[in-house]
Amino acid sequence: MSDKLTKILNASTACIARNGVRGMRVNDVAAEAGVSAGLLYYHFTDRAGLLAATLEHINKQVSKDDAAPSTLDAEGRKRHFRHLLLDEIKDDADVRRNSVAWNELRACSIFESELAEPLSQTTTEWNRAIARAILDSSEGTSTEEAAVTAEILTSLVEGISGRWLNGFITTEHAHSLLTTAIDALAAARPATSRESVV
Amino acid sequence: MSDKLTKILNASTACIARNGVRGMRVNDVAAEAGVSAGLLYYHFTDRAGLLAATLEHINKQVSKDDAAPSTLDAEGRKRHFRHLLLDEIKDDADVRRNSVAWNELRACSIFESELAEPLSQTTTEWNRAIARAILDSSEGTSTEEAAVTAEILTSLVEGISGRWLNGFITTEHAHSLLTTAIDALAAARPATSRESVV
Repeated sequence: MSDKLTKILNASTACIARNGVRGMRVNDVAAEAGVSAGLLYYHFTDRAGLLAATLEHINKQVSKDDAAPSTLDAEGRKRHFRHLLLDEIKDDADVRRNSVAWNELRACSIFESELAEPLSQTTTEWNRAIARAILDSSEGTSTEEAAVTAEILTSLVEGISGRWLNGFITTEHAHSLLTTAIDALAAARPATSRESVV
Repeated sequence: MSDKLTKILNASTACIARNGVRGMRVNDVAAEAGVSAGLLYYHFTDRAGLLAATLEHINKQVSKDDAAPSTLDAEGRKRHFRHLLLDEIKDDADVRRNSVAWNELRACSIFESELAEPLSQTTTEWNRAIARAILDSSEGTSTEEAAVTAEILTSLVEGISGRWLNGFITTEHAHSLLTTAIDALAAARPATSRESVV
């Protein structure tokens, strides 16, 4: 992706994180990115197109280093998998900005149906990435079990993120809840995979 | 609560579910409830007061029959606990309306700080109710474990609800994910309580 497009999508994410989807104006995004509004319409057709591209952009940023390095041992792959989830909630300005924007896009897609399709796609991609990490990190887990566990854990990350963004729980507490859930779901898998977890 | 207040809060919930928090006008709520805007301001002071009262109203409606009847046996109490969570996601117009409004109030409280305090309170009440139901339905679980499990499960309900409301998953699939998570968290508790679960 060109530097200019990246700049526009970062600006769009920042605008959503600041004022919400309904407070996002294409002109403000253009101003923040230092480009003309015409260029935005040229690349993204309309506001809905810009929002969809922003969703995809956030998803890619979050999951850009999803695949575990092939050099990792079993313990390392397990740690890598945990971090994929825990790193969604972090005391870091970029992570928080992405999380606010993602949370807001999710909430708005109930009212703006054009958002639902790209959101559904990015959610599916996220689920698949987590399912792959589960399969990589625990032998004996079936593809089907990994898919269900991934769906539960990504839903949980979204639920916990909402409370974290609202300041109801600390980053530490959010991580502790997630870790407890990951351990419980791992332990609930069949005995063949359990020995590598306990 | 008087019939008139209930009517106003139902109207407010419906307006939020239809147009979102940012599309909610006090005048529209008054019109929908068939009362004067003056009466709304008299009872709720301002828009923020009305939103806070609406949050509490939704929470009370959802949890109005939280306590398990004392006549239930162990199996019945366990079913009751499950239904407290599963019933948040249901093919029922009122449940869906409440869920959309709750989801929207949660998302907006990141941008409207006046909403954060009442939302934090209602979330805490919900967590407590679920923790009580866990304690009632599984012997050998400590108060602390029940509190953590409750927090995980209510967060998960919020995460799964978002996907259900967006039409990404069916009611049946949402229930299946929730049931899998409930079973895994129950099985992960200490051995003394595990025998009553498996």
